[in-house]
Amino acid sequence: DPVTGVFRGVIAGCGYFSRHHLEAWRRIEGVEITATCDSDPARARAAGLAAYTSADQMLEKERPHFLDLVTRPETHLELIRTAASRGVAVICQKPLAPVWGEAVEILRIARSAGIRLMAHENWRWQPWYREAARLIRQGAIGQPHAYCLRMRHHEGRGDDPFPAQPYFRDMPRFLVYEILIHHLDTARFLFGEIETVCAELARLNPAMRGEDRAVITVRHQSGLTGVIDGHTLHPSASGVALGDAWFEGGNGRLALDPNGNLWTERGCVWRNDVAAGYRGDSVRAAQAHFIECLRSGAPFETDIEEYLRSMAAMEACYLSAERKAIVSPLKFLVDSQSE
Amino acid sequence: DPVTGVFRGVIAGCGYFSRHHLEAWRRIEGVEITATCDSDPARARAAGLAAYTSADQMLEKERPHFLDLVTRPETHLELIRTAASRGVAVICQKPLAPVWGEAVEILRIARSAGIRLMAHENWRWQPWYREAARLIRQGAIGQPHAYCLRMRHHEGRGDDPFPAQPYFRDMPRFLVYEILIHHLDTARFLFGEIETVCAELARLNPAMRGEDRAVITVRHQSGLTGVIDGHTLHPSASGVALGDAWFEGGNGRLALDPNGNLWTERGCVWRNDVAAGYRGDSVRAAQAHFIECLRSGAPFETDIEEYLRSMAAMEACYLSAERKAIVSPLKFLVDSQSE
Repeated sequence: DPVTGVFRGVIAGCGYFSRHHLEAWRRIEGVEITATCDSDPARARAAGLAAYTSADQMLEKERPHFLDLVTRPETHLELIRTAASRGVAVICQKPLAPVWGEAVEILRIARSAGIRLMAHENWRWQPWYREAARLIRQGAIGQPHAYCLRMRHHEGRGDDPFPAQPYFRDMPRFLVYEILIHHLDTARFLFGEIETVCAELARLNPAMRGEDRAVITVRHQSGLTGVIDGHTLHPSASGVALGDAWFEGGNGRLALDPNGNLWTERGCVWRNDVAAGYRGDSVRAAQAHFIECLRSGAPFETDIEEYLRSMAAMEACYLSAERKAIVSPLKFLVDSQSE
Repeated sequence: DPVTGVFRGVIAGCGYFSRHHLEAWRRIEGVEITATCDSDPARARAAGLAAYTSADQMLEKERPHFLDLVTRPETHLELIRTAASRGVAVICQKPLAPVWGEAVEILRIARSAGIRLMAHENWRWQPWYREAARLIRQGAIGQPHAYCLRMRHHEGRGDDPFPAQPYFRDMPRFLVYEILIHHLDTARFLFGEIETVCAELARLNPAMRGEDRAVITVRHQSGLTGVIDGHTLHPSASGVALGDAWFEGGNGRLALDPNGNLWTERGCVWRNDVAAGYRGDSVRAAQAHFIECLRSGAPFETDIEEYLRSMAAMEACYLSAERKAIVSPLKFLVDSQSE
């Protein structure tokens, strides 16, 4: 609001993850969430704010500055169309869209309506990755030679995997689409654009429909090669970093442990003491960035157009596994330009 | 010898690595090395045994039971032809041959002469891998889900890489051909046949002609996927294991540290206290296996025909990088059968 400086927002989708959004919004200054919306009226009311079952009605009545979209990916295109028609800025949870064509359509809608649209991608906002990026750019490891982001989750085990998000079981594309896109985006954040990916995908737990094991080899435009290695059958509960990572360069090595601490050969160089929020308070950091950029006019790190590069890398992984080939994400980006 | 039970051997090639062979032979009971041969007479004499500059003359005069071939790969085919014509068993250092066609030709020669021929592949004989294999087969980690063999060497740094083996610098194919074939073979030893590989290769040090960085994704016939990740620009001296490794399964995790110790979540489960010989005395173990099988008639673990599968995986890595494709080693094996 130009007078009060407060951004009024509304939330569409009141499932498992939206509680993290709401909790984080409440700790960001200059933001007021006025309403929530869900097709299930009881869930819509749970936050104790104005409750709607129709996003269109919510936007009509609340006249917010922004829409926080936490619904399932299948609904994003239509809801963004609605928000765009009203000139409302959107912060949209990932996956942005279930198929590539819809993501491109979302970009077009946002562009032609002139609304601002940021992908709610919290992974790169985890403080250990911010600090790792700072150290690497400072030259702490020298020229990067190799890296690995290793994702481990334990809830994919057994006959009833992912009890908090049981729809994970029925997704035709699971691990890369739902989870490792975080790591592809973080790899871009740390090391720049991705030139090619090669993916080996497998389904280890027969109770899952989609893949729950992936090894992705990444080649960056800089020439750097790294690995994103994930599965969801870890025998024990995973730490806050949902796995670990290492980054190697000509002068040294930086390692992330599962608890979010960073190490070099000399010992611990960054201790994770973030207790608040989700995974290093990364949801709050992503949302604070959204508000800061709305206020300043600066570009979002994960502006829709920018984030399409991470999505293209994700799509390239599936194409790689299908065609048994090393695939460039550019294939998707160029196709989307020429359509 | 049928009377004394002693196997008399001769060594061809007196370069850097043959000293490890000779030292190991001296600690194997029932073996006598009678002569060494090198094109450089001074090197041939260095061992203090009968010295030759011609392998043919050495075989003619010494009439050994076996030839230990430690010459450069380019010479293996002709020397094996010579040994085969005299019915002499051969233990041959890797790389077996500089190109795939020569390896297949070597197999044919050995088969048609009926001589026994073992690839001198020490990596899988490192005691930490023997113990890891035993633990994994015992069910220590449950069903294997994922693994990584990470190879790190420090001698590839700077303007004069690999001072002990300077010819490494000029090899058109270096890291996979010369070093990571060990890891491909060890992966087969641990987890069975390889169905496909995908390789990203890069040259990091411009003083090298061939690649000194590789990420190889391996899919085994069992469905297991793993990673072989290597480079030779490690900032500090590497431990005896030349890197590290981890193996994950449904029930747990086993890790190899750079000093050759094995760890589970419960702590160290195998302490490397092998001080003798080369890398866990693996050269001696490979050579002792050769003698044991000569004596018993049992097949060698790395019999030429068996080892061709590891070589095919190595060749598949280069084809993968060239074609930007996921490649089956079977392509090479089938081609070699049908020729």
